[in-house]
Amino acid sequence: MPFKKLGEQSIYYEFPPVIKSSAAIVGPEEGKGPLEKNFDLVLEKNMYREKTPEKAEMKMLLESCNLALKKAGIKSDDIDFFMAGDLLNQIIAANFTARELALPFFGLYGACSTFSEALILSSMLIDGNFAHQVLMGVSSHYETAERQFRYPIELNIKKSQTAQYTVTGAGSCIVSDQEQGEGVKIINGTVGKVIDMGIKKADQLGSGMAPAAADTIVQHFKDMDAQPSDYDLILTGDLGKVGQDILRELVKKDGYDISNNHQDCGVMIFDFNKQKVGAGGSGCGCSAVVTLGYMLKEMEKNNYQHVLVVSTGALHSPLSCNQGETIPAVAHAVLLGG
Amino acid sequence: MPFKKLGEQSIYYEFPPVIKSSAAIVGPEEGKGPLEKNFDLVLEKNMYREKTPEKAEMKMLLESCNLALKKAGIKSDDIDFFMAGDLLNQIIAANFTARELALPFFGLYGACSTFSEALILSSMLIDGNFAHQVLMGVSSHYETAERQFRYPIELNIKKSQTAQYTVTGAGSCIVSDQEQGEGVKIINGTVGKVIDMGIKKADQLGSGMAPAAADTIVQHFKDMDAQPSDYDLILTGDLGKVGQDILRELVKKDGYDISNNHQDCGVMIFDFNKQKVGAGGSGCGCSAVVTLGYMLKEMEKNNYQHVLVVSTGALHSPLSCNQGETIPAVAHAVLLGG
Repeated sequence: MPFKKLGEQSIYYEFPPVIKSSAAIVGPEEGKGPLEKNFDLVLEKNMYREKTPEKAEMKMLLESCNLALKKAGIKSDDIDFFMAGDLLNQIIAANFTARELALPFFGLYGACSTFSEALILSSMLIDGNFAHQVLMGVSSHYETAERQFRYPIELNIKKSQTAQYTVTGAGSCIVSDQEQGEGVKIINGTVGKVIDMGIKKADQLGSGMAPAAADTIVQHFKDMDAQPSDYDLILTGDLGKVGQDILRELVKKDGYDISNNHQDCGVMIFDFNKQKVGAGGSGCGCSAVVTLGYMLKEMEKNNYQHVLVVSTGALHSPLSCNQGETIPAVAHAVLLGG
Repeated sequence: MPFKKLGEQSIYYEFPPVIKSSAAIVGPEEGKGPLEKNFDLVLEKNMYREKTPEKAEMKMLLESCNLALKKAGIKSDDIDFFMAGDLLNQIIAANFTARELALPFFGLYGACSTFSEALILSSMLIDGNFAHQVLMGVSSHYETAERQFRYPIELNIKKSQTAQYTVTGAGSCIVSDQEQGEGVKIINGTVGKVIDMGIKKADQLGSGMAPAAADTIVQHFKDMDAQPSDYDLILTGDLGKVGQDILRELVKKDGYDISNNHQDCGVMIFDFNKQKVGAGGSGCGCSAVVTLGYMLKEMEKNNYQHVLVVSTGALHSPLSCNQGETIPAVAHAVLLGG
């Protein structure tokens, strides 16, 4: 068996696993954006008929998992392992979803980078021959994130223009080996380092995450001996309008030009002419629902062949910020191929 | 290459990775217990000369990683990936340690089960041929856990006798393939399901975790077609005195008798005649420092050959408890062999 690490931070899959099925559920605000028709379900209200936003988030994650199973035509018994994470303290959306699914469970925390972290690890389980089929999912929710990381929305605090809007969304998918299904392939991945540029404010997370995204993308090109033109699209997770410009500049300084084939999920998911969403969407759900809900369909239609998904996570902790710490960030890249 | 999943929830490693080096740092209370001489460093004070207990925990985790590297005689450049987790919201001890180490990083959250979760996944990276050497670490800290999950210690709230005492400790190790080093082998693992018996109080976590530990241990025996007598020791993470009795009963009901070869790290780490530690130790650090600091040495001396380490995690969230939810639990098992 070949050694499957490449360069400093990357790995490849000898027999690329596939995304056999997926499901994306979003809140009403996300349903008003340009990608509306791509989602499996747009909630009427963020509360999803639950009493608390946390319970709504749990329900959304569980429903997205059940929908991914249904679309694949399989039952949870056919799944080897479940892997999930979210932004909530103690990843309660993931934990309670795991309780309901009753599957052997790996809990992850990578803030908004959790989606690509889970894709990389799920694919390692498959290509390492430890599993045939892994169910994975992530979620985020506007109200749960606002009150945990910033202010309860009831306080109606005025937001800075650089602040981002946490996406209410859950994305789940079944990663399987090629014998169990067909779909877009997971070809390789680059695992990010934690990068800290000294950002201290929770309304500047896009600027904080851009250096982490740049570091991972540049490292990916080096490890894979690749050029931006080898990809149809480089799709970052949730840098927003401020962060995406910084990213392009940073990557250019390192000798790579991605200005023609880079887009950011946090920018794509909203219509900035109509929606008040600050610098754009954020949250683990953001890159998950845009990738699983929209991009996979585009790839299946052959509109894109090779897409490098780079979920970006600000490792923001209100507690460590209060203790004078900065907000570090991390980004993981995954290459999807048609 | 063989398919390496066994039964419902277990996997094995074709070429068992080894624990090449390890380090265990504990607080002063843990240093007063019977395992004192086994730890690499006993802190004089829990604050470790830092201004906040969170910074002390971060320092402890980082130092344990650096010590594991030093003992292996290698530098962080020789490590392929870093994998870590802790109990703090947003796993800040792990994140800030990853920032300092500047290694490609996977963040995990499994509450107090994170130690065995990380052992299983690190070994998968090695045996899946994605890495030669993985550095992994977990930590917990009495003051940081008390104020996040219960009450700040300054309030001096009287504790119930069933309550447990969060271990101040960090345990880190280098998991490598057999060509990179020698050491105790990681033979197989059983990934736990999230089990919920309806416990609602944070001072009954031992009772809450015992059913999860029982579920994983019984499943391990079934998946591996093994009997308790095949092991020299079944070492649970942090059930404490209350939880360990419940575990033995539950496992017996399923037809397996572990009463002669079961011990619990949370009971082993303290001297109950001298120390006021409730029902025993808890926290991710508990199973990590007992296993890495004490048990590995015993195995190297051939006092034990086959030890099933079962770290147990209560997925306790103050927020979901306040919303009327129960406290589910999860336990992962890893078989270590001489």
